[in-house]
Amino acid sequence: MSNPTAAMLVIGDEILSGRTRDSNTHHLAGALNARGIRLMEARVVADEPEAIIQAVNALRAEWDHVFTSGGIGPTHDDITAEAIAAAFGVAITHRADAMALLQAHYDRAGVEFNAARQRMARIPDGAVLIDNPVSVAPGFSLGNVHVMAGVPNIFEAMVAGVLQGIAGGAPLLSQSLRVNRGEGEVAGPFADLAADFPDLSMGSYPFTQNGAFGTNLVIRGTDPARLSAAMLRLQALFG
Amino acid sequence: MSNPTAAMLVIGDEILSGRTRDSNTHHLAGALNARGIRLMEARVVADEPEAIIQAVNALRAEWDHVFTSGGIGPTHDDITAEAIAAAFGVAITHRADAMALLQAHYDRAGVEFNAARQRMARIPDGAVLIDNPVSVAPGFSLGNVHVMAGVPNIFEAMVAGVLQGIAGGAPLLSQSLRVNRGEGEVAGPFADLAADFPDLSMGSYPFTQNGAFGTNLVIRGTDPARLSAAMLRLQALFG
Repeated sequence: MSNPTAAMLVIGDEILSGRTRDSNTHHLAGALNARGIRLMEARVVADEPEAIIQAVNALRAEWDHVFTSGGIGPTHDDITAEAIAAAFGVAITHRADAMALLQAHYDRAGVEFNAARQRMARIPDGAVLIDNPVSVAPGFSLGNVHVMAGVPNIFEAMVAGVLQGIAGGAPLLSQSLRVNRGEGEVAGPFADLAADFPDLSMGSYPFTQNGAFGTNLVIRGTDPARLSAAMLRLQALFG
Repeated sequence: MSNPTAAMLVIGDEILSGRTRDSNTHHLAGALNARGIRLMEARVVADEPEAIIQAVNALRAEWDHVFTSGGIGPTHDDITAEAIAAAFGVAITHRADAMALLQAHYDRAGVEFNAARQRMARIPDGAVLIDNPVSVAPGFSLGNVHVMAGVPNIFEAMVAGVLQGIAGGAPLLSQSLRVNRGEGEVAGPFADLAADFPDLSMGSYPFTQNGAFGTNLVIRGTDPARLSAAMLRLQALFG
């Protein structure tokens, strides 16, 4: 498949400590899939500069796009923008366009635009701002790295904006068959089928219901005709 | 903090495609935390040998323990055991102890112990089996890598077993204060407090409720006296 590829990088001690459950990766997976972009890898790293820099540089070298979530707020533990600038070896400043957005926002709210809030205007040189329709403080894209907030509704709004500006690929199609047999029973014929369709991806996911074993057989690919042909064979085997 | 460190590696196309939501990382984070082991990184990779090998080798070199989930069933897309053997450069065989466990299980159930089911007895040389109290097919530990099933209730049972055999560290304590102010308002004094307690980790997590902004301020560490001292200061600031 020649679809564009992507990786997700979650920046967050709160995920690793078990305090918070990450939902952004699952949301991004669905949004990318709908756009024909394949999510190839996801990572969660701690709020530590070296960990972020190392992960960003590894992922941006390997995949077409990298999406990050978390660490762009006003507090001392929000270090993502500085780390991204360091990863790219570029300067970071309180940029005028971001300052203007935030100044206008806090003026409207009658709230002081203090030093902490001004940190949210720190943007690496060369980056393009990502609109934040929820709470104004922008994300940014630098090269193929898209830096977004961790709060789920803000993350989701930013993803929608970024994806409008990115070339997608052929839709990633998926069909599945639910079979009331254990994996060990379907494995042989299913492997033979997969070997006959090397252009498709076939996966098997066991479940138990009321004490009985069952299996969801999933076929993924981009060619609708091939997918239909494989599903016909699958139904003939186990339907 | 000198607590042992760990990483999680989720092996699963079904997570990356958005079909399934990973819950194993969140479970592991909580279980490790309770045992005084710090989860430092998590990754999700596709069901591809090279991706698994590369991630396992990077993570086992960097952290004290690596926990993997997924890809140890009987179907053709279950390639984790082979990939782990390749990562360590050891042979993998249908091992007698695992064969005996599974043979007895399928004999009891009156089900054929076919070639697909025998794949679940493929164990890298030098590995120690991990008990599976749910569905018998074992996981295994090889060096500092613990290989477990992806099905959540089996993963969780295996984690409980593995953690009994691993040295933990001082309990990782956490206290938090919920403040009805936005992050931008608390950021300055909170950063000053964090600077006074470099041995503790302090994080700030914004939320909105009924349209109003609030912040959860979280302090983590291992020394109860230091944690109490910091919490007293925090309450004096924002309580």
